[in-house]
Amino acid sequence: MAINQVNKEIPQEYAEKYQIYAGELAHIDAYQEASRKIDPVRPRASKMVNDLREAIEKTGLQNGMTISFHHHFREGDFVMNRVMQEIADMGFKNISIAPSSIANVHAPLIDHIKNGVVTNITSSGLRDKVGAAISEGILENPVVIRSHGGRARAIATGDLHIDVAFLGAPSSDAYGNVNGTVGKATCGSLGYAMVDAKYADKVVIITDTLMPFPNTPISIPQTDVDYVVEIDAIGDPQGIAKGATRFTKNPKELLIAEYAAKIITNSPYYKNGFSFQTGTGGASLAVSRFIREAMIKDDIKAGFALGGITNAMVELAEEGLVEKIIDVQDFDHASALSLAKNANHYEIDANMYASPLSKGSVINQLDIAILSALEIDTDYNVNVITGSDGVIRGASGGHSDTSMACQMSMIIAPLVRGRIPTVVDTVNTVVTPGTSVDVVVTELGVAINPNRQDLIEHFKKIDVPQFSIEELKEKAYSIVGEPMPIQYGDKVVALIEYRDGSIIDVVKNV
Amino acid sequence: MAINQVNKEIPQEYAEKYQIYAGELAHIDAYQEASRKIDPVRPRASKMVNDLREAIEKTGLQNGMTISFHHHFREGDFVMNRVMQEIADMGFKNISIAPSSIANVHAPLIDHIKNGVVTNITSSGLRDKVGAAISEGILENPVVIRSHGGRARAIATGDLHIDVAFLGAPSSDAYGNVNGTVGKATCGSLGYAMVDAKYADKVVIITDTLMPFPNTPISIPQTDVDYVVEIDAIGDPQGIAKGATRFTKNPKELLIAEYAAKIITNSPYYKNGFSFQTGTGGASLAVSRFIREAMIKDDIKAGFALGGITNAMVELAEEGLVEKIIDVQDFDHASALSLAKNANHYEIDANMYASPLSKGSVINQLDIAILSALEIDTDYNVNVITGSDGVIRGASGGHSDTSMACQMSMIIAPLVRGRIPTVVDTVNTVVTPGTSVDVVVTELGVAINPNRQDLIEHFKKIDVPQFSIEELKEKAYSIVGEPMPIQYGDKVVALIEYRDGSIIDVVKNV
Repeated sequence: MAINQVNKEIPQEYAEKYQIYAGELAHIDAYQEASRKIDPVRPRASKMVNDLREAIEKTGLQNGMTISFHHHFREGDFVMNRVMQEIADMGFKNISIAPSSIANVHAPLIDHIKNGVVTNITSSGLRDKVGAAISEGILENPVVIRSHGGRARAIATGDLHIDVAFLGAPSSDAYGNVNGTVGKATCGSLGYAMVDAKYADKVVIITDTLMPFPNTPISIPQTDVDYVVEIDAIGDPQGIAKGATRFTKNPKELLIAEYAAKIITNSPYYKNGFSFQTGTGGASLAVSRFIREAMIKDDIKAGFALGGITNAMVELAEEGLVEKIIDVQDFDHASALSLAKNANHYEIDANMYASPLSKGSVINQLDIAILSALEIDTDYNVNVITGSDGVIRGASGGHSDTSMACQMSMIIAPLVRGRIPTVVDTVNTVVTPGTSVDVVVTELGVAINPNRQDLIEHFKKIDVPQFSIEELKEKAYSIVGEPMPIQYGDKVVALIEYRDGSIIDVVKNV
Repeated sequence: MAINQVNKEIPQEYAEKYQIYAGELAHIDAYQEASRKIDPVRPRASKMVNDLREAIEKTGLQNGMTISFHHHFREGDFVMNRVMQEIADMGFKNISIAPSSIANVHAPLIDHIKNGVVTNITSSGLRDKVGAAISEGILENPVVIRSHGGRARAIATGDLHIDVAFLGAPSSDAYGNVNGTVGKATCGSLGYAMVDAKYADKVVIITDTLMPFPNTPISIPQTDVDYVVEIDAIGDPQGIAKGATRFTKNPKELLIAEYAAKIITNSPYYKNGFSFQTGTGGASLAVSRFIREAMIKDDIKAGFALGGITNAMVELAEEGLVEKIIDVQDFDHASALSLAKNANHYEIDANMYASPLSKGSVINQLDIAILSALEIDTDYNVNVITGSDGVIRGASGGHSDTSMACQMSMIIAPLVRGRIPTVVDTVNTVVTPGTSVDVVVTELGVAINPNRQDLIEHFKKIDVPQFSIEELKEKAYSIVGEPMPIQYGDKVVALIEYRDGSIIDVVKNV
């Protein structure tokens, strides 16, 4: 056992293989970038193949290899299930999968795991049935949970080498020029897929909308693509936009949003050209609305909004309140449409978004990040991956990336959810270390990290109730009581990588 | 001595180091892509440095290293001379320079060579004073001449490793997001620079127009940039557009253009969605005008124009006769403006343009290329690098790339220039092998390569005089006489790489 800097016990084998978390910048060193094996495509050769099976055959896929997918289609994704079924039908075993994330719709993975087709998984997160099955221990090897920036880092360093990337494309030409803004199932930005395309040895584009050459704009260029296969449907547009949230009428969420907006608009960062990233929850969208009102009143315009883009940001841009949108993924159809038509709405890849080992990611230029939490503890550590029952049901996402890199990170969360406290003594699983978290905003008021004496001083006189994080925890416990400890088993079912690749926590079976 | 497939003698040491040319696709093999060493940029670190000297110091430049520049500013470039002077002043020696090309304006290089600051050069071409000095033999090691696609290939394979790229940027933000369409000295596409930025260990952006973050559109992203330095002026807009040609009134050029247009519009490729690339000479621009008239009459629209973009193509696009422009460099200001405003005018890098070892370059999808020649011989070999006196004064450019990859390559050239025949027994220097050349167009008529019996058959009845290449040569010689052989010395002053990296010819001193 090794104890890391957030006091988590990491089994020796993982501590040796990955190193343990030792501080936000402990493992930021120069390195030789990973590269792919390229099989040149000669003049007059075609990249089109007849079907998925032929594509898989042509890639030279073998047992034991690593394949990847992107999660831009979220709950509307058809691609991963289709490809995995074909791979299973062809008799492959011992495949490692490295999708950028896994959704509820990917429950068929459970059978592929049980049948030995899939033996390793790395992902940003796991939802519902797959998360529950992993937490039960159906996979021999632990799932590796990576943040969006951490995944880009792992690919760039070679920690995650992708043999074959199977990338769903809303549109492509026959030579593999791809974008996400044209087609039957548009998802907008292809920011996560772009990284896989650049580093994978073999890249298969799977599309249901074949365009004449050259298909522009080009998110993934032909120079990153080996084969193109046309199928009937790559995704369900309804499912792609699922999870997009309407403006909340929940009084608790509105109060959280109001406090958060006051923190933002009273912060030292709130001035012309400031930048922010918000999430997709009801309270996050409400924050956008509140700061919109303030920006109009104060005649202040943001330089850029980053993310994870929703219609709320698109509207701010269209009003001229946000000059540019920098977009690694879109959460709703309006955002995908905006990317297609607004020259100030700009697509970037996940490496540029958040990798800690790039020559500088956009989050390094970010003023304010608004983030969620399943749990936050009195050391300000945040859990966004396991529920109060210890079962994996969330996603690391850009949480540890943005919170670390930005000027002021804000966790917005209700003090309790049903009978479950959000502010606790110790989170079940640390995804983001407390050193990265600056302000916690609840419906009762805010707590500012004592590391940020500058902010404590700055916010002394604002009209928002302020507490210590211990006081917030006591208030939560006084409402719902102290949570019972979870009875974990002995098996490590998931490793939580910090963005730099070290292990910040492990999840055991329940 | 080794004899290569175009019957050129290659000294043994170069034959062993580079391999000899053995056919267009002889060396197209799978390979592990080269990669760069990355020094991650941490949150809150600045990339801005005070001046060129500080930038050079921070890169860790050492004697013996390789540095690169781009040639998008052509005769208006201030960057290479400024950087080289600083490097010389700092006392560096034995530097290899790898600009994408070298212009007349770079004559100060001659002193840097004489002083031992520069000891190796690779470039697409050499003009005027620098070409003459190299042909005299002032550099100990031969210059390596690479095509645009060949340079991208050499960088991607690691044959050309760039330690530090010094890239002039019409605009950049402080974090290194660069484009060529905003600023004081706009050049439009940065297609050659984009490759250097992706593979160089260290990248210094040199700009005279610093924009707020994030500067969009982004041609070179912050993730490829280590340092940004602001200077007073990076280039002269007049010089950038120098060489842009007006529509010719020369009757000989008009006749060549008319014949070329007839070949195009009577070819099997002339149909809706066809594609073409033209050069910048007077006759090339006239071809654009003639095919414009035909396209309107025949109600035919091109799918894309590629290049090397001039205002002639921009006008065709604006008229709707060309659907898309795919742009690796712009030859005039109108083209740079079009890239900024026309969503169907799309910037690509040199790797995507023409590398023979990419996963498929755009030239592989090209129907018709119109190319120039200093000389063409009865084997259809083309020389675009040495004059009739044997002195280096041209550039390889995309000649061997496009001519090989496209469906029909056309060399347009006057039969004689002054007292010098263009069609000859044997070209002084082979840049493009005759197997890549399909049709030669002169003011007397055309010659079709016997390799292309399909074209000979197809063009049997068209209204253009047709000759064998030997007949064209005889006509040329009958006008100006047979050229005297050049008296070369014994020293190899330049190696002509074929696009695949093998040596197709050498140039000796005169």
